[in-house]
Amino acid sequence: MIFASDNWSGVHPAINDALAANASGMAAAYGASELDKAVERRFDEIFEREVAVFFVGTGTAANSLAFAAVNRPGGVVLCHREAHVIEDECGAPEFFTHGARMAPVDGANGLIDPYNLKRELARFRPDFIHAGQPMAVTVSQPGEAGTLYTVGEIGAIADIAHERGLSLHMDGARFANALVASNASPADMTWRAGVDILSFGATKNGCWCAEAVVFFDPEKARQFPYIRKRGAQLFSKTRFVAAQFTAYLGDGLWLKLAAHSNAMADALREGIRRSTHAREAWNTRTNEVFAIVETATAAKLRAEGAVFYDWNPPHGSPTLIGENEQLIRLVTSWSTEPGDVERFAAAIA
Amino acid sequence: MIFASDNWSGVHPAINDALAANASGMAAAYGASELDKAVERRFDEIFEREVAVFFVGTGTAANSLAFAAVNRPGGVVLCHREAHVIEDECGAPEFFTHGARMAPVDGANGLIDPYNLKRELARFRPDFIHAGQPMAVTVSQPGEAGTLYTVGEIGAIADIAHERGLSLHMDGARFANALVASNASPADMTWRAGVDILSFGATKNGCWCAEAVVFFDPEKARQFPYIRKRGAQLFSKTRFVAAQFTAYLGDGLWLKLAAHSNAMADALREGIRRSTHAREAWNTRTNEVFAIVETATAAKLRAEGAVFYDWNPPHGSPTLIGENEQLIRLVTSWSTEPGDVERFAAAIA
Amino acid sequence: MIFASDNWSGVHPAINDALAANASGMAAAYGASELDKAVERRFDEIFEREVAVFFVGTGTAANSLAFAAVNRPGGVVLCHREAHVIEDECGAPEFFTHGARMAPVDGANGLIDPYNLKRELARFRPDFIHAGQPMAVTVSQPGEAGTLYTVGEIGAIADIAHERGLSLHMDGARFANALVASNASPADMTWRAGVDILSFGATKNGCWCAEAVVFFDPEKARQFPYIRKRGAQLFSKTRFVAAQFTAYLGDGLWLKLAAHSNAMADALREGIRRSTHAREAWNTRTNEVFAIVETATAAKLRAEGAVFYDWNPPHGSPTLIGENEQLIRLVTSWSTEPGDVERFAAAIA
Amino acid sequence: MIFASDNWSGVHPAINDALAANASGMAAAYGASELDKAVERRFDEIFEREVAVFFVGTGTAANSLAFAAVNRPGGVVLCHREAHVIEDECGAPEFFTHGARMAPVDGANGLIDPYNLKRELARFRPDFIHAGQPMAVTVSQPGEAGTLYTVGEIGAIADIAHERGLSLHMDGARFANALVASNASPADMTWRAGVDILSFGATKNGCWCAEAVVFFDPEKARQFPYIRKRGAQLFSKTRFVAAQFTAYLGDGLWLKLAAHSNAMADALREGIRRSTHAREAWNTRTNEVFAIVETATAAKLRAEGAVFYDWNPPHGSPTLIGENEQLIRLVTSWSTEPGDVERFAAAIA
Repeated sequence: MIFASDNWSGVHPAINDALAANASGMAAAYGASELDKAVERRFDEIFEREVAVFFVGTGTAANSLAFAAVNRPGGVVLCHREAHVIEDECGAPEFFTHGARMAPVDGANGLIDPYNLKRELARFRPDFIHAGQPMAVTVSQPGEAGTLYTVGEIGAIADIAHERGLSLHMDGARFANALVASNASPADMTWRAGVDILSFGATKNGCWCAEAVVFFDPEKARQFPYIRKRGAQLFSKTRFVAAQFTAYLGDGLWLKLAAHSNAMADALREGIRRSTHAREAWNTRTNEVFAIVETATAAKLRAEGAVFYDWNPPHGSPTLIGENEQLIRLVTSWSTEPGDVERFAAAIA
Repeated sequence: MIFASDNWSGVHPAINDALAANASGMAAAYGASELDKAVERRFDEIFEREVAVFFVGTGTAANSLAFAAVNRPGGVVLCHREAHVIEDECGAPEFFTHGARMAPVDGANGLIDPYNLKRELARFRPDFIHAGQPMAVTVSQPGEAGTLYTVGEIGAIADIAHERGLSLHMDGARFANALVASNASPADMTWRAGVDILSFGATKNGCWCAEAVVFFDPEKARQFPYIRKRGAQLFSKTRFVAAQFTAYLGDGLWLKLAAHSNAMADALREGIRRSTHAREAWNTRTNEVFAIVETATAAKLRAEGAVFYDWNPPHGSPTLIGENEQLIRLVTSWSTEPGDVERFAAAIA
Repeated sequence: MIFASDNWSGVHPAINDALAANASGMAAAYGASELDKAVERRFDEIFEREVAVFFVGTGTAANSLAFAAVNRPGGVVLCHREAHVIEDECGAPEFFTHGARMAPVDGANGLIDPYNLKRELARFRPDFIHAGQPMAVTVSQPGEAGTLYTVGEIGAIADIAHERGLSLHMDGARFANALVASNASPADMTWRAGVDILSFGATKNGCWCAEAVVFFDPEKARQFPYIRKRGAQLFSKTRFVAAQFTAYLGDGLWLKLAAHSNAMADALREGIRRSTHAREAWNTRTNEVFAIVETATAAKLRAEGAVFYDWNPPHGSPTLIGENEQLIRLVTSWSTEPGDVERFAAAIA
Repeated sequence: MIFASDNWSGVHPAINDALAANASGMAAAYGASELDKAVERRFDEIFEREVAVFFVGTGTAANSLAFAAVNRPGGVVLCHREAHVIEDECGAPEFFTHGARMAPVDGANGLIDPYNLKRELARFRPDFIHAGQPMAVTVSQPGEAGTLYTVGEIGAIADIAHERGLSLHMDGARFANALVASNASPADMTWRAGVDILSFGATKNGCWCAEAVVFFDPEKARQFPYIRKRGAQLFSKTRFVAAQFTAYLGDGLWLKLAAHSNAMADALREGIRRSTHAREAWNTRTNEVFAIVETATAAKLRAEGAVFYDWNPPHGSPTLIGENEQLIRLVTSWSTEPGDVERFAAAIA
């Protein structure tokens, strides 16, 4: 009953096989191998256009280096107040941008409210240099709260960003889960809606270390090879990242794995809804579930072997958590077994 | 006949098996798994003392974050003038230290000359803040020129560093090759000789992505978890780095692979010595060979399928390269086949 | 009728005389002159203890370098949501700290609410490195909103900070105005209440360029000479900063000037209170006045020669500003003339 | 007999008068006053073209922020091996550029040798990202060694820089001394010879704090307002910098002061040439004099009240300093009195 995080999961057999298949022989290092090139073309197919793709080692690196690529002096990134880039990356985005600020924007359910975004941007008046200058907006899809933007909502945010000359970045650490839950195509979810740069995560969904920064306008990526190398994220044996992506993106594996993961979360949600000791904190449709459970129940679940994290309540949230309750997060993955979910549902009933 | 670099090699079967063996199931992320802990204890054994070990993704990250751990405002790292940290890391050491300077020290054969080190340090007078303040000395073992410090030479440099209160860092991207060529123990080569921090590389020698920063005084590593996370180098599924190290360090595999690699280079050196169209640029005993070859010969070798890099002559080296000659570097690896070396020797004869 | 900012004012004659008196002759550069040393001793007297004082060129530099002095990897500075360090320094604090985050804490009237501070700090759990680590709390005295902390309130915040091992920094860009309005001694307002580092501003109050970072524990300042030089804030002819401070701090001039400035603001406040077209946005007692005025009135005032800034309403403030109203800020200074205030009061009546 | 540095000098009476004349009244802050604008136009006149001028507080800031303005990821600045930006700015250039490297180029007499510059640049092959990418060349005029480039030599270096797409920066901390000694016009010495950015220093030559960054192509300065503010170098009461420049640049004062300073150095040089206990280390024509003196003589000079610094011998210089000798630096200034020079010449005779 491990629902701590999808990054507690292992590596899918097909991806492991791809690693093994490429283990022997020599291949050009630093992204110059045939396999690397083939994966780049695969990304073009998936996104239905030419893109510039750069492998990196962690989601934090993907986000931070993406910001570095579009940074300006005194730069400001507008993001949701609970965004991973603020809450969980130990200041890496600020570090890699030489101090750009992650400016929090409020919005219900972990999603940026376009009205608040506009209002926040209005505080930055052109030529008032003291406030710094916005340089990007970032959305997580799905967000930290496990919720989703519709394609239309992304488009609305993109319009606001582009009107001010800002890049729109999407943190897609769980991008496949978002696609499956939204039933949208990769192109529709991203560049057709106005996304300029995507952090494309595969590690949580069956790879062991496969993240990429995708620029939908390759021209904007011209300096990125230097940015990545300077940021210590240029691996030598990149063919092994490429091998993972080959299997992951081949034959729709990535979407199948995400569909399983989301379905397991659906079952968890169903179990929580039926419980008299717990309730969903807010509704999600991806592989993260947030629940308010009685303190005694949380303890009992843990005693029975369930593993999950207590969660910081969102800033400024209505105090929906009672005296003897606590907020927890449950995450399913590509390898979550139905039996675990059933046992959890029984234990919380 | 690929002698471009040892990072063109793949993954040793035993290491690949270890990855596969750990592919399924759940494990705590971010370095907290059992496997991670077991590898940490293995490092203690290898170095015959308690050490603090941190996995990172690239050698550049290992070096850069090590410097960040001991940095001071206006900090200066003394290193050889041809050091990898100056020549080949795209400014990452400076970037991760917020601008520490890599101050070049001259020395023959790619090795810091203790006399020059002392003289360079003397330029930094305590309380003359304008010059900045030295904070570390770094040696590569083996160095970019493929040569080796003796344990005694490392000790001499350590004494100079410690007298000034500086940390001594060792860039051990090819640490196993150095050990095998020197017939020294890991402990003798490092902390017993005065090394404070080691970049321990395994990627080039049969892993696909396994690098570590080793602090011989764990107390100095107290802030390193934050430094690594902020530097986007904390992998989530660290068990897969741990799995590589388990196989690599188990049963002496790492030293066997390095011994093979060095032996292949010995054979290359022998072939070059016998050639009338080439000569060793300087003598090495590890898996890097530097040769001065006739331009026509270099072209012929390439035409016959040999892959190797032209190399920048060291700064200030006596002009040992003739009009119709060029400097090349040949690197062997754990997977270099004797047949390739024989073919190369025949072609250059 | 210029109420744009106190930094539109000039230099007090006594301070100008001090500059002139030191214009000729030679003096040791970089802070080593007799005059520099004398000013350092004067700071000891004013604060009734030994302090470490460092001159810098701007208030932004004072704040940013102070944070750099106590920074930690992944560091976080807790500050008020409207703090100058967030709103008006173009990212300098983040820049000089290599990416420390300025984490906003809410509180009425531009003052940190201790309850909110505690709650915000509780989000940072020791050993959860992903969130980064708090390293300082900063209060502005007076704050951007022109309001004041009592000495007791500062003490309460200091206790919270120190319990977590954090330094308490005070941004005293208008420190003299705060002292005069509070009738507190420099020592009581700062280190006796728990302040560890003070940005001591004199520029706005009659100097032309005289700011200082004051460490109440000189031990914490050991690396600061390097931090300041690396930050390009070590002036060569520091005797001219020292000369300004000599006059400023001699004979109570600084407090007299601040008292005048505050009194002029009192008169402005009185005028606004009597107006039927404006009201104080919130009550202040220092030299900044915030008023909500009818749009037509603001235009009329400007037409008659008044100079002042429109002001961003505080985040999350109740919408106290009506449809045909706007928020403005008026600032008086040591050189504001009573006639100007009277004319303004008449114009707004 | 103070020859420690020209920054030990004070403020010229005319400059002091200008400060006093602007002390009263209100003026727009942050560079927006009438006086600021007038000085900007004066710079246009002096350089015979439209330039973009930005005041900053220190020469270190001018250099560092200039580099930041043209920086690239993994950026490298080519400079002389003894350049002030390497030797004397405590890592500020690296700090403000987020880790750009100051790459040393050798050359006799403190001047970059164009041949060496070319050779050094050749080490950076386009598309070999590991080495980083050059982004600027910087020359000091006069250099740390007090020597001068001819206008033609500057042009030769500019050609090399521009061929590679690099900006040419000139560190003009003692720009007036260079002009006077060269008998060149400001335009000829800079943009007509190919200089793109100039650090224009006035502090050492009679001001107390007046430095500027001059962009000869204003388009390249578009982001500089943010770079300066983020770098904590935007002063509020800029009118006082402007006032200094008004007097300094008015009526040729700056050139007259530099001419006096150079003439005093000529007299020193003459005295040294006549001495049997000392000799010029290398010939200079500006206000810095480098001499090799007998150790006993140096002690005697100091005992008689002379103040000067011992100097680090240039890297790799032929060992021109004998056993009982030492290298010293003597600097004259606008306020050096002939009597002091005569006394020194007598003492060293």
